Amino acid sequence: MNDLLLRALRSEPVPRPPVWYMRQAGRYLPEYHTVRNSLPGFLALCRSPKDAAEVTLQPLRRFKLDASIVFNDILVPPAAMGMDLEFIKGKGPVFHDPIRDPSDMKRLKMPTVAGDMPHVLDTIAILTEQLDVPLFGFAGAPFTLAAYMIEGGGSRDFLHVKRFMWQHPKAFQELLTRLADICGIYLQAQIDAGCAAVQLFDTWAGALDPTAYRRFALPAARRALANVTGAPRLYFTKDSSCFLPWLKETGADAFAIDWRTDMLRARHVLGDTPVMGNLDPGALQGPPELIRTKVRKIIQQAGPTGHIFNLGHGVGPTTPIDGVHAMVDAVREWDWNKL
Amino acid sequence: MNDLLLRALRSEPVPRPPVWYMRQAGRYLPEYHTVRNSLPGFLALCRSPKDAAEVTLQPLRRFKLDASIVFNDILVPPAAMGMDLEFIKGKGPVFHDPIRDPSDMKRLKMPTVAGDMPHVLDTIAILTEQLDVPLFGFAGAPFTLAAYMIEGGGSRDFLHVKRFMWQHPKAFQELLTRLADICGIYLQAQIDAGCAAVQLFDTWAGALDPTAYRRFALPAARRALANVTGAPRLYFTKDSSCFLPWLKETGADAFAIDWRTDMLRARHVLGDTPVMGNLDPGALQGPPELIRTKVRKIIQQAGPTGHIFNLGHGVGPTTPIDGVHAMVDAVREWDWNKL
Repeated sequence: MNDLLLRALRSEPVPRPPVWYMRQAGRYLPEYHTVRNSLPGFLALCRSPKDAAEVTLQPLRRFKLDASIVFNDILVPPAAMGMDLEFIKGKGPVFHDPIRDPSDMKRLKMPTVAGDMPHVLDTIAILTEQLDVPLFGFAGAPFTLAAYMIEGGGSRDFLHVKRFMWQHPKAFQELLTRLADICGIYLQAQIDAGCAAVQLFDTWAGALDPTAYRRFALPAARRALANVTGAPRLYFTKDSSCFLPWLKETGADAFAIDWRTDMLRARHVLGDTPVMGNLDPGALQGPPELIRTKVRKIIQQAGPTGHIFNLGHGVGPTTPIDGVHAMVDAVREWDWNKL
Repeated sequence: MNDLLLRALRSEPVPRPPVWYMRQAGRYLPEYHTVRNSLPGFLALCRSPKDAAEVTLQPLRRFKLDASIVFNDILVPPAAMGMDLEFIKGKGPVFHDPIRDPSDMKRLKMPTVAGDMPHVLDTIAILTEQLDVPLFGFAGAPFTLAAYMIEGGGSRDFLHVKRFMWQHPKAFQELLTRLADICGIYLQAQIDAGCAAVQLFDTWAGALDPTAYRRFALPAARRALANVTGAPRLYFTKDSSCFLPWLKETGADAFAIDWRTDMLRARHVLGDTPVMGNLDPGALQGPPELIRTKVRKIIQQAGPTGHIFNLGHGVGPTTPIDGVHAMVDAVREWDWNKL
């Protein structure tokens, strides 16, 4: 078993950072579309362990990666709570029954992993038999899930969420608490099923100002992670730059930072907590020499311990395969022992 | 003439910060829709000086604001360069002929303000006769305009821009240089026509990592502002948190910061350069007492000199009028002399 990822997460000496990237199983791979198009929809793919395991393995066949992440979607738990989720082509996820009033929360049931989301555990079981790299499990963070559930999908300004949050702060806290408890159970179940690490995705936390982040999103993320044991717990937010001084309060073991966050500042603020990141996914649109230069700069700035190489956000659907090769090769060629 | 804004921009003593907000003439006002619906389209409104002046004045009739901003759109200059711009309901601006290859740049002509965008100057002429507060002119910053022109509209991941930028860096620099020169001339013309201040909107600069920001967006913004004289020049970007250490290199006289940026850190990094901001537009969805608390915290943290109160981004289309009243009243009630 390749344990580079786990050693880096323990800040042990490594010759180079481990490399994997968010959404590495996905739309930029033609073989992904083959599987996806053989099924009635995106959720059907998430819910078919055999197919979800297959697309999880696809990037590992092309690229020499040091970690894998189970194919799944962060909105599976809200769907398991009874929300009417549909993935619409060209639009993304849509909840047809958004939560707009505290009374709407009565509709939400407390799901169980085994009863309502068993496919995730089955996918993990298939994967752990075949993988020779550590497998990540993941969940959406409570604020990010609440944002989707209240907006009814993606949003630019999150005005429905803000309205709910400020008009009904107690109900919003209650929603976050329920989601945090579900996230915690869900992450623990993925570890118990064989995941070697888990990541909490607080993609939309940057909709909040720092005060609101510390009042709502941060304590909910902390609660989600608090009782999760047995594997390193990572925390990602797409606007990490604004929240760097408070990230440690989540209690996470490592932080994935976005591409706008200056790596030197992240290291300075986060101290010796391991950091993951932070190449701009858009850099993979560039020529190999540019990608190599950017990769090497990030590794240099992150330093020799406690760094996991990754993109600063999910890989884009139009990403050239050659760009990914250039990134992975540049990381693998690095050798701290030769510097 | 109310000169509170100009005094604050000179860091002179003021009893309270001046208050205005981005997109204060806009869709959250019912009287705006009356004017907008009487015209064939959004661009027709921008291009009709009488109507543009009318909607500019509308928020000043409802709220006691300390500044005005000419109604216009940042995409007027690219349209004047010959690009086929349409505002589509529910989708926003669309360029039907995006720049995807350096050869597409041959299509772009060098516009003149008087010949291709005269309506802006006519609107300013009408307004300066009627206003008793300073009038802002504005322009989109070169990178943000280039991003729209290459994507063909808004975007989440800006992969077309990144592809163009990294595959054709010289052509991209040339595009930015041309846009910077047009921005500079355009801003100067607005000052010469009577604007008391100008603002450069680099809304999408946060698509870039800090290195790319410093290579492309920042020098282009500096070039746009370099020869603009006779009025304070402000610079806004929606992801100011990541770029704070480099903002001063734009040469701007003051910086508008977004709502995710911690005001104390902004002050710490920017020193005594005036700062504008930074209430979350989403906070206006909350009850008056919450808005008042947030307003007072921002003013306290910004301190008594060189602060202009504003939102951290444009006011949202579903913003309640009462929320705006609560914000404006909270700023106007403040008195540094009584503390």
